[in-house]
Amino acid sequence: MPSTIQEFIKHNETRFLDELFTFLRIPSISTLPEHKTDVARAAEFVADSLKNAGVENVEVIKTEKHPLVYGDWLHAAGKPTVLCYGHFDVQPPDPLELWESPPFEPSVRNGNIYARGACDDKGQMYMHVKAVEALMRANGGKLPVNVKFLFEGEEEVGGESISTYVSKHKQKLKADVALVSDTELFADGIPTLCIGLRGLVYTEIEATGPARDLHSGMYGGSAPNAVFGLIELLSKAKDADGRIQIPGIYDDVVPPAQAEVESWKKLPFDESEFLKHEVGSTALTGEPDQSVLARIWARPTFEVHGIAGGFTGTGAKTVIPAKATAKVSMRLVPKQDPRRVVDAFKKWVEENTPKGIRTEVRVLSAGPAISVNPNHPAIDTAARAFAERLGKPTVFIRSGGSIPIVGEFAAELGIPTVLMGFGLPDDGLHSPNEKYRISNFFAGIGTIARFLQEYGQNGARMLESKQ
Amino acid sequence: MPSTIQEFIKHNETRFLDELFTFLRIPSISTLPEHKTDVARAAEFVADSLKNAGVENVEVIKTEKHPLVYGDWLHAAGKPTVLCYGHFDVQPPDPLELWESPPFEPSVRNGNIYARGACDDKGQMYMHVKAVEALMRANGGKLPVNVKFLFEGEEEVGGESISTYVSKHKQKLKADVALVSDTELFADGIPTLCIGLRGLVYTEIEATGPARDLHSGMYGGSAPNAVFGLIELLSKAKDADGRIQIPGIYDDVVPPAQAEVESWKKLPFDESEFLKHEVGSTALTGEPDQSVLARIWARPTFEVHGIAGGFTGTGAKTVIPAKATAKVSMRLVPKQDPRRVVDAFKKWVEENTPKGIRTEVRVLSAGPAISVNPNHPAIDTAARAFAERLGKPTVFIRSGGSIPIVGEFAAELGIPTVLMGFGLPDDGLHSPNEKYRISNFFAGIGTIARFLQEYGQNGARMLESKQ
Repeated sequence: MPSTIQEFIKHNETRFLDELFTFLRIPSISTLPEHKTDVARAAEFVADSLKNAGVENVEVIKTEKHPLVYGDWLHAAGKPTVLCYGHFDVQPPDPLELWESPPFEPSVRNGNIYARGACDDKGQMYMHVKAVEALMRANGGKLPVNVKFLFEGEEEVGGESISTYVSKHKQKLKADVALVSDTELFADGIPTLCIGLRGLVYTEIEATGPARDLHSGMYGGSAPNAVFGLIELLSKAKDADGRIQIPGIYDDVVPPAQAEVESWKKLPFDESEFLKHEVGSTALTGEPDQSVLARIWARPTFEVHGIAGGFTGTGAKTVIPAKATAKVSMRLVPKQDPRRVVDAFKKWVEENTPKGIRTEVRVLSAGPAISVNPNHPAIDTAARAFAERLGKPTVFIRSGGSIPIVGEFAAELGIPTVLMGFGLPDDGLHSPNEKYRISNFFAGIGTIARFLQEYGQNGARMLESKQ
Repeated sequence: MPSTIQEFIKHNETRFLDELFTFLRIPSISTLPEHKTDVARAAEFVADSLKNAGVENVEVIKTEKHPLVYGDWLHAAGKPTVLCYGHFDVQPPDPLELWESPPFEPSVRNGNIYARGACDDKGQMYMHVKAVEALMRANGGKLPVNVKFLFEGEEEVGGESISTYVSKHKQKLKADVALVSDTELFADGIPTLCIGLRGLVYTEIEATGPARDLHSGMYGGSAPNAVFGLIELLSKAKDADGRIQIPGIYDDVVPPAQAEVESWKKLPFDESEFLKHEVGSTALTGEPDQSVLARIWARPTFEVHGIAGGFTGTGAKTVIPAKATAKVSMRLVPKQDPRRVVDAFKKWVEENTPKGIRTEVRVLSAGPAISVNPNHPAIDTAARAFAERLGKPTVFIRSGGSIPIVGEFAAELGIPTVLMGFGLPDDGLHSPNEKYRISNFFAGIGTIARFLQEYGQNGARMLESKQ
């Protein structure tokens, strides 16, 4: 990689940060209607930054909700194509009173940028733009690889528009690999590629007992209680050790390969630190015969995200509630079929609903787990670029979360995704005082530039060997 | 009983109804601050109606919250004293859209008065006032018995002020028996006295898991979930048959006497009608070896009135909730000590709280069950007056609910309470389209007048025999 690229980055650090700060000042909160124009402004900012970088065919694409931004540069004949993805919308900043500096006025403290979106995902997606700009400038207006960009403004509210767009524009978005920077380093300074994401089946369950709320004195002892019925039902979903009791749920679960398990053991993971500083409770839970990393990366879950029913105001009201609802999800691991899981869950609910209670399950989303082959040339190239830039071997981890767009790139475009993120576990995404380490912002730009450069070479060799 | 009394009532039916309607038009909703002056207006209305009836020493008593109304007539030398109680505050009328006529504009349909408070308790407490007025007019300004009135405007919000007042004015409120009309007939036309009320221990339980809401992808499988922890805990409170699993909870429960059980069997109670028209679910629940009436009258309960925790908005949010709360009560039957029940519950919570979860129990109220001896002269007299007026034998029932003031009259004043109510099971207290049957309003005035008259005679004999 020409030293001019890294030099260009070094010489432009102040400008890059200034631009990022301008980007971060736009309160592009996608879930709040009053910020709709801010999301649109952020889209325009992104489009302009792509044009300034030398990207062509830049367009802001109107959708039903928030716009998408597309751009490409496709003159690297015979070279592979990378589809860069990121999102320019952010979570609401509440609770505001917990922020030490205003969420939309970036502030630098201890080498970190504090702002909503600093890490998730403005700071990270902007690395893609700046990496391409650096490559372009250092190569006399040319890139060593073909690139397409697709950025969205709805990631924090479900990403419906991009999902529709991807399925309708397969040819336009055709690429060899996708690049997503919306994940984190396992720990600061450790080059990390994520090669597995859990899937997710998210449901809403409603229980109905009596026809209306009843007086608990007049009917207590004889009338079914919707809240208690839902409690009885859900309590049966896991045993005391956290093992899911829904028949068939573990049928398709494939244990991670021995080599992967061994590699996890080498990660700098301290269970008591994790309990104390990340979880903050008195004990960890879950299957005792599985390591913590296995439990969060390679095992399905059953989680109740919320429950509501009956009287919950101040004081006392003696009702037997007629209705109760809960949000229930199951995280899935590779090979689990979301449809089979949905069916198994519905059957289990039906068979375990207590006497006098009726239940209804509504499926809000269902997507499979993703696993990426670490031997794929793009992943291999990314791992080497990462290791070279940070000076340590790259580790391959999984994430317990789900990034739906990665599944859509796999299903609709048939391409794997390089999940190369530069956040840190304590960056506080979705929380007050979200931050992004400045050194990781520049390490990201450098690593991505290096990856694109080397993938242009390696990927081209691969394309040749295919022909 | 002089026929003049019943004649007086008959001749004044239109006026009595007109007055009641004026009373019902006052939206004396005690829980809503914006109706504070309406509750005060209702107190003034009650005070005026007592004065017009010939009651003396009428006063509107200021309290921390809503006023009380007191009045007495104590010139029946050698005769016993009856303490009449009722409440002039009402529940909010929501949901308004379900009312067929405005809640504070009384409307007569099919022999019923439709209005908020028609039955609970304005219509019923006003019977006391009108019964005394009728007795006074028919007896040339004298009563056959001494009466004291104590009416409150806080019954629907806990009744704190009256509780304080009773404990501080024992001498002023000294009486031989209390009379409360805030219950119902077992069925229309059946003279009914309630001789047992369940007690109530009402608590709030809070569960804490992680230090803050966690991302269910990143931590799911390893972090304790406050909502699920609370579900796990509460699910253990009852077995599938509804039998409470808290050790010691049934220790002091005394089964009803055989005679009482036999009398319940004779009541016109149809279980399938009860399921269909009152409960409105697919099945009744509770201990299968107990009859429905025993389950709601003579057995303790464990009820979850409401639960809240985590995300319950529209759509999907993948949090592992840090906190969850539930409102949990236990109804008590005679001989159960509320303090022992509280202790047993707290101990059970402590011992059954799942790993990784912390729980805290807050006791909001705790009062014992009440049972009244049906052989007490006042009850005996009431039963006969009731039977004479309605032309059928009086039945003795219990109520599964709790009327705290009855416990306070027993504990503070040492007197039993005649629970003589004229509501019907489908009067819809606390619900839209609350109603009160007009014929029962007048039957109530007549029965109460008859009871006061006869208790003046019988009670006097009893007082004499004591001396």
